[in-house]
Amino acid sequence: MAAMFKALADPVRLRLLSRVASHPNGEACVCDIADVGVSQPTVSHHLKKLREAGLLTSERRATWVYYRPAPGVLASLGEFLADTEKAGKEEISPAARAS
Amino acid sequence: MAAMFKALADPVRLRLLSRVASHPNGEACVCDIADVGVSQPTVSHHLKKLREAGLLTSERRATWVYYRPAPGVLASLGEFLADTEKAGKEEISPAARAS
Repeated sequence: MAAMFKALADPVRLRLLSRVASHPNGEACVCDIADVGVSQPTVSHHLKKLREAGLLTSERRATWVYYRPAPGVLASLGEFLADTEKAGKEEISPAARAS
Repeated sequence: MAAMFKALADPVRLRLLSRVASHPNGEACVCDIADVGVSQPTVSHHLKKLREAGLLTSERRATWVYYRPAPGVLASLGEFLADTEKAGKEEISPAARAS
């Protein structure tokens, strides 16, 4: 899980992840991604890092590699964070206090 | 947001975050945390990193600094990830396809 958060610890990769996920059909190739402020080879490099961390899956079709979010992975990470937040908010019940 | 994910990109810090959040009353000091496999100064160091990233807040009371999850922050990060996953799953509606 730490390795996944490490892959997310970069503003360009965060932007790319959103871009891939919100692209029509939930997949995108480097050819679909422009104006993220870095060159196409850099986009390729970061997409590969996201795939190596298990956040994206990839499929080669003819000339291009298409990336999409790995099913369930982002949701699981999100759930872990939400659950951690929730644990911190749970008050000790009066019954538990009394015991 | 990338800086927050960077703070989470470490197994010890992930463990500490869970430990603080799940501690009674949702707060803990270094004195409350043992058996995470690292020394107390290392625990202090990592708690400080989590605070600097905005994931924990801290309050000094007498000898100890007490840490708790910063309200709403983990939940927001979790929501961002869940929303990104959801965006990737949304199918194009037949109406949108036809247009």
